Amino acid sequence: MSEVQRSFPSHAAMDQFPVADGELVVGGMALTRLAARVGQTPFYAYDRSLLTRRVGELRAVLPSVLKLHYAMKANPMPALVCHMAGLVDGIDVASAGELKVALDAGANPRDISFAGPGKQGAELRQAVAAGILINVESFREVAELAAISAQTGNKARIAVRVNPDFELKSSGMKMGGGAKQFGVDAEQVPALLTEIGRAGLSFEGFHLFAGSQNLKPEAIVEAQSKSFDLALRLAREAPSPVRFLNLGGGFGIPYFPGEKHLDLAPIGAGLATISERAAKELPQAELVIELGRYLVGEAGIYVSRIVDRKISRGHCFLVTDGGLHHHLSASGNFGQVIRKNYPVAIGNRMAPSEREMVSVVGPLCTPLDLLADRMELAVAEAGDLVVIFQSGAYGASASPQAFLGHPACLETMV
Amino acid sequence: MSEVQRSFPSHAAMDQFPVADGELVVGGMALTRLAARVGQTPFYAYDRSLLTRRVGELRAVLPSVLKLHYAMKANPMPALVCHMAGLVDGIDVASAGELKVALDAGANPRDISFAGPGKQGAELRQAVAAGILINVESFREVAELAAISAQTGNKARIAVRVNPDFELKSSGMKMGGGAKQFGVDAEQVPALLTEIGRAGLSFEGFHLFAGSQNLKPEAIVEAQSKSFDLALRLAREAPSPVRFLNLGGGFGIPYFPGEKHLDLAPIGAGLATISERAAKELPQAELVIELGRYLVGEAGIYVSRIVDRKISRGHCFLVTDGGLHHHLSASGNFGQVIRKNYPVAIGNRMAPSEREMVSVVGPLCTPLDLLADRMELAVAEAGDLVVIFQSGAYGASASPQAFLGHPACLETMV
Repeated sequence: MSEVQRSFPSHAAMDQFPVADGELVVGGMALTRLAARVGQTPFYAYDRSLLTRRVGELRAVLPSVLKLHYAMKANPMPALVCHMAGLVDGIDVASAGELKVALDAGANPRDISFAGPGKQGAELRQAVAAGILINVESFREVAELAAISAQTGNKARIAVRVNPDFELKSSGMKMGGGAKQFGVDAEQVPALLTEIGRAGLSFEGFHLFAGSQNLKPEAIVEAQSKSFDLALRLAREAPSPVRFLNLGGGFGIPYFPGEKHLDLAPIGAGLATISERAAKELPQAELVIELGRYLVGEAGIYVSRIVDRKISRGHCFLVTDGGLHHHLSASGNFGQVIRKNYPVAIGNRMAPSEREMVSVVGPLCTPLDLLADRMELAVAEAGDLVVIFQSGAYGASASPQAFLGHPACLETMV
Repeated sequence: MSEVQRSFPSHAAMDQFPVADGELVVGGMALTRLAARVGQTPFYAYDRSLLTRRVGELRAVLPSVLKLHYAMKANPMPALVCHMAGLVDGIDVASAGELKVALDAGANPRDISFAGPGKQGAELRQAVAAGILINVESFREVAELAAISAQTGNKARIAVRVNPDFELKSSGMKMGGGAKQFGVDAEQVPALLTEIGRAGLSFEGFHLFAGSQNLKPEAIVEAQSKSFDLALRLAREAPSPVRFLNLGGGFGIPYFPGEKHLDLAPIGAGLATISERAAKELPQAELVIELGRYLVGEAGIYVSRIVDRKISRGHCFLVTDGGLHHHLSASGNFGQVIRKNYPVAIGNRMAPSEREMVSVVGPLCTPLDLLADRMELAVAEAGDLVVIFQSGAYGASASPQAFLGHPACLETMV
């Protein structure tokens, strides 16, 4: 049996959290003590030191002139955004709600940018009043911003989000190329730039975002290089020099068996080449990459407590107090075509003498509420703590917390 | 082109809402006026008269002795639960949170039942205090309830949720048969009944639930018949006569092209046969079916407003202020393996002179935020109202409302 299992792909090692005395250590605290401090399960915990370390690792590899933005859609918890605001060079927001959190966190409006395909008039007015950079995604937005600027006397700061004429290969989600709701097709951008110039708005540059959750460095390098080339071509049509160029992100993290940590070295080399070209060809431009999941995803865990241990027709189910209502993505119901297991462990039994094949399910009356499907875990019982790793991004905020009327989860920074 | 399209399956007619002067009429009000009354988009609207009509249609077909319960997990909006509590014979809850709403709505605790695979001690104590029927799903729950009953002097009312030894054929979701977290395996039930008797708890009967969202009447009839047979067998082992027998539900509604409305006649006939047998073989038993989606799903719509109309590489995108954060299921991200379109219309252009192939997307920065993929709809523009039908169940409460920081939707009864 174990021979057979070894031939299956396994999860990447989750060694970002140490283990001591058989327990996972999170934020310097044994998991059972952390759970006692939080006062309830389920909860998400995000580790400040891992967030800081990740930004440091990136800075070490990326060219020093490159600016690093945090796309807070990945995790909008206010305390986390505060921490990130002190580490990165800017915050990217996707709504007026996120804008409020970013401003509250003390981010400089100069370095906040706002993207999204359906920005409403009220949101655009808030963005202009805040003085942030707006990544326009349609001709309608430019017209609305021209009217707002004329009415208020505050000139809108604009970058153009471009739907490129290529796609990010091997991407978890394609967000550019072909017909898309995101940005303006590259071939329509010159006409849009003319509109921006005619309206007298403050043109600052371009935003290109080819896709997300990519684990192939060569694909990311190619997309960034093509994005830069496209921006260079489009810059010739711009009403003023490019001062801001967001090359997107798309850096993936390993979730599923067989996936490996992204190799940053080739990406750093590719961005160094782009930076050198930019120094000559777009000398006034601030070069930016925008990362969400990659900055925060591995620093977070989701912790639930086993309520019941049931054997049904020979199979063991660990029933926990947490489930898809808190962590939709781990249940396999958020964009996955085929459900796969996130990395999971029994956090207070990290050095078990015995392991067994179990399924971990939540308390909801639906077969969708599945957190681990037939995984080999430490033998566990009611009261033990189930940990889902890689849960720092698209967890609590991306889940239907009200579903079936169970309590919301807590989120804590450690 | 139109010849080719006619050969594709189409959506079932959504004629539960009338049309007048080119507008959908919801609760007796033209949709644009309703939107003005609500004061914002997006919103869900649930039509009281359709809820009432649906229960009446069922009563007309089902045997008069059969009790009809509402599984409020489908839609827990308090005003809707109040309305349903006045129509049906009982409410089924899935958490202490739902129990509160059911009690607030005035449901009789005698006719409230509580199911769920991971009931916690605190929830069980609340349920015992409320005097509702608890569908136990494990030996652990029986032991906890025995302790609670002994401590408080309030005897727990218990039914046993059985994981049957068969499956509901053609079911959208299988919830019985094989190894499952739901209920207790049929073959373990005799031992559980012995425990219940030994603990002196108040045994009332059985709950069987084979699956949900089934559109094949013959499969439902077969499952109900087999469930009854199984309950009869298990009743022989019970510590007291069966007074409650919940045969589950599973009645589906048509969501996707090619799906048809469920034919109730054979189901009514099958339940009549079961009722006759029950009168002889389980003479003290109240026979119950439990429906959620079937009672409320077709009475609800989700309404969002078009913010932008964009053409990208020849394809038209209608960008709305609503999306997957309010209606995850319509985006295809809640249990669907292959994404299909819900029935969609432009609610203020129900008699269009021109139609076109478009995609309807939400405001989120993710390609998952897709409400209609290449559907032929009335030619529409910014300000028009997009209606998603079949949205009365598993909509607002089953969606990640906080995702990306956009405002929550409203829900209104009309």
